[in-house]
Amino acid sequence: MESVYAHIDANTQKYIDRLGEAIAIPSISGDASHRSDVFRMGAWLKTELVRLGFSAIEEHLPGKQTLQGHELDLPPVVLATFGEDNNKPTVLVYGHYDVQPALKDDGWKYEPFQMVHEKETGRIYGRGSTDDKAPILSWLWVVEAYKALGKELPVNLKVCFEGMEESGSEGLDDIIFKEADRYFKNVDCVCISDNYWLGTKKPCLTYGLRGVSYFMLEIHGPAKDLHSGVFGGTVHEPMTDLIHIMSKLVSPDGKILIPGIYDDVAPVTEDENKLYQGLDFTLTDIHNATESETTIHESVRDTLMHRWRFPSLSLHGIEGAFYAPGAKTVIPAKVIGKFSIRSVPNQTPERIAEIVKTHVESEFKKLKSRNTLKFEAPQGGKCWVADVNNWNFVAARSAIEKVFKTSPDLTREGGSIPVTLTFQEALNKSVLLLPMGRSDDGAHSTNEKIDLFNYIEGIKLLATYLEEVAAVPK
Amino acid sequence: MESVYAHIDANTQKYIDRLGEAIAIPSISGDASHRSDVFRMGAWLKTELVRLGFSAIEEHLPGKQTLQGHELDLPPVVLATFGEDNNKPTVLVYGHYDVQPALKDDGWKYEPFQMVHEKETGRIYGRGSTDDKAPILSWLWVVEAYKALGKELPVNLKVCFEGMEESGSEGLDDIIFKEADRYFKNVDCVCISDNYWLGTKKPCLTYGLRGVSYFMLEIHGPAKDLHSGVFGGTVHEPMTDLIHIMSKLVSPDGKILIPGIYDDVAPVTEDENKLYQGLDFTLTDIHNATESETTIHESVRDTLMHRWRFPSLSLHGIEGAFYAPGAKTVIPAKVIGKFSIRSVPNQTPERIAEIVKTHVESEFKKLKSRNTLKFEAPQGGKCWVADVNNWNFVAARSAIEKVFKTSPDLTREGGSIPVTLTFQEALNKSVLLLPMGRSDDGAHSTNEKIDLFNYIEGIKLLATYLEEVAAVPK
Ligand SMILES: [Zn+2]
Ligand SMILES: [Zn+2]
Ligand SMILES: [Zn+2]
Ligand SMILES: [Zn+2]
Repeated sequence: MESVYAHIDANTQKYIDRLGEAIAIPSISGDASHRSDVFRMGAWLKTELVRLGFSAIEEHLPGKQTLQGHELDLPPVVLATFGEDNNKPTVLVYGHYDVQPALKDDGWKYEPFQMVHEKETGRIYGRGSTDDKAPILSWLWVVEAYKALGKELPVNLKVCFEGMEESGSEGLDDIIFKEADRYFKNVDCVCISDNYWLGTKKPCLTYGLRGVSYFMLEIHGPAKDLHSGVFGGTVHEPMTDLIHIMSKLVSPDGKILIPGIYDDVAPVTEDENKLYQGLDFTLTDIHNATESETTIHESVRDTLMHRWRFPSLSLHGIEGAFYAPGAKTVIPAKVIGKFSIRSVPNQTPERIAEIVKTHVESEFKKLKSRNTLKFEAPQGGKCWVADVNNWNFVAARSAIEKVFKTSPDLTREGGSIPVTLTFQEALNKSVLLLPMGRSDDGAHSTNEKIDLFNYIEGIKLLATYLEEVAAVPK
Repeated sequence: MESVYAHIDANTQKYIDRLGEAIAIPSISGDASHRSDVFRMGAWLKTELVRLGFSAIEEHLPGKQTLQGHELDLPPVVLATFGEDNNKPTVLVYGHYDVQPALKDDGWKYEPFQMVHEKETGRIYGRGSTDDKAPILSWLWVVEAYKALGKELPVNLKVCFEGMEESGSEGLDDIIFKEADRYFKNVDCVCISDNYWLGTKKPCLTYGLRGVSYFMLEIHGPAKDLHSGVFGGTVHEPMTDLIHIMSKLVSPDGKILIPGIYDDVAPVTEDENKLYQGLDFTLTDIHNATESETTIHESVRDTLMHRWRFPSLSLHGIEGAFYAPGAKTVIPAKVIGKFSIRSVPNQTPERIAEIVKTHVESEFKKLKSRNTLKFEAPQGGKCWVADVNNWNFVAARSAIEKVFKTSPDLTREGGSIPVTLTFQEALNKSVLLLPMGRSDDGAHSTNEKIDLFNYIEGIKLLATYLEEVAAVPK
């Protein structure tokens, strides 16, 4: 690998410049006026894929959407293949070429769509730098390096790049399921680089995601909003009922109050417990991130377990009540309380929805209110957890050890990355999350950056990972 | 009085036409683009006052306001006097010449600013018809009738007409307090016609109003909104704390849960109890008004007592939480719960603020949260209750009996009419609320109307009231 690493080091400035080119295309999927830029970014990638000799390049157009009053074409899901050798394993990599919105006025120190490489800090600033342009480009630079060196890629590589990730990945799932038996037929494992290190110092591998179930709890009474002077004290107020039920969902220290909710939570095993040792994380990280010292738990282990492997319930808000600044003495006629539960193995969205419904209805009954309850539980998203000992993870771990001379943190994420589960279910192959950037990169925030170190060592990591995938026993 | 009544009957069509003229001026105080119409309406009244021979006509300009981005002059408070005979009592009457907004598209059957007199139903439709143009005009028609008949008015009459009532009566209080010892110096009693009969059949006199104290309960934790996937389960969420405290304020059947809140509530006396007999009110009235059967109490007496003479607490909403349609998995960083208490004799806003603060802080402490509580209790409005046996009420009751051949309902209002208290405190004279319209007039709603019966008999009532004020022993 020494020649590959040397090539990557020697081409650092080229990688920076090309990342700058990609950042300069403001491919904001959530802004109708930037839709053509998303398409331009997709075309930029296709040009690179052609130049590098990828084959079977396909642009799948998921159809149309209405956004901000405009009917828009959805940007293409770009599929491409490098190598079709039946004796090699086939690795599918996923990434997205769209980005979050950004305005200089939001508090950026530089123009968000003009890359700035700060030499003194080693940081490369720009919207999309870490999420997710550096990672997707890195896969291309690996192929380029092998070609330049006249080396054969140790695996067959398939890429799947989408342009709608920041806007709900509209249309992606259909394409993945449709192509499962065709384009993705020979895939042996999947690698997604679209999350972050747990801290800022140590690389990591991510093996779990929580699921999420969203709930809407509607209480309605009168046909229209009432004046609290005239009706206060004489009618059952929907807000009062709702607040009482919402207070029976979660305690101030985060304990979920729904009977049975913890029954399906997998117990912590000894092996799992060990994974929490030596993680690159302190409570200060969470205090810095929230700019407050409002953490519930006293230890890193308890804190991360409650982020990763225990369910949580958050109350998000109320639709229909008075929400503006100032004082208004209204009795809202219809209010909808919104909350969600982050779920973990072995909870299922179906079972969660069932026990939440039972609990909410039973609490409402206790109120003896004459108002009406309507409970909605839209389709929940499942949690995901991988076996950290399968060969895909073993390969990645070994690659990290080779490049970074350290063992990775094995982490989960508290949130969901839905495409992970889609690949898992559509292909039934091992999926791995292999992050490139750091926890402080500011992915959806102002001053998004990626450290040059993470970018360049990340390219080496991806190359080494492909070598290890080819090498490990399966 | 027979000649006065005959004159009023004979001039019915003229009164209708002039009400039509007033309705045609869309004097909407809450809409900057209609401010000139409010001034036009003030000028229209002044012209009438001049024509009728009122003296000492003064237009007090309360100053400026900023509304919808425009700096606007506040419309005048119009003062005028009819008669200055030291041997007669002086009656001050109040009304407002501004109106609520109205658009045909809101669901009006006719153009809201073109009066329609529906002969078959006897109803006069138009914005401002009952609130408050018919009442203020009626005072003028009484003076006109006496003049036409060559009769002397039995009292000195002072009028106070404002143009900002529907928008917080900006500037009015200052003028009343400033003129208390000058323009209003000799006033013996005050009569306000700006509320409604309890039902639709029986006239009433109103002797009480609840006060209102508004509260803002702010909980803040992190510096900015957090993602519930990443932070759910690890930090104290401000919404959870807030919902728990809000659930400790009022029970679903309307009982206030704040210790001590009922201590100062005046006990129901035998005399007061009698006032609840034979009121023109049924639970169906409240069911029709709310278009639901969500009343708490089973009897008219309990229902009206909880509207009029017991305190109530309503939860209005939450600022800072997610309020839009759809699903968003945010942990709001700062939330402000808003609620208010309608207060009754002998509660005071000061005492209420004190015990609410104590309760809220003690409930917050129980949560053992690391978030921060900030509690705000802006200046509350006092409740008001009059002695129904004072001569002002005796005069009004006797007038009602003469005109309507029935005893009035003696009612309170659950809401506040702040000018009542201002007059009470500035002049320290008996204030009486003498409504003209019916409960179903739709004052702030679509299809506002006044029944011709109420308008014409109302003019007779005001004339008779002035006679009785002059006649009753004081
Ligand atoms: Zn991403
Ligand atoms: Zn993202
Ligand atoms: Zn009014
Ligand atoms: Zn009004």
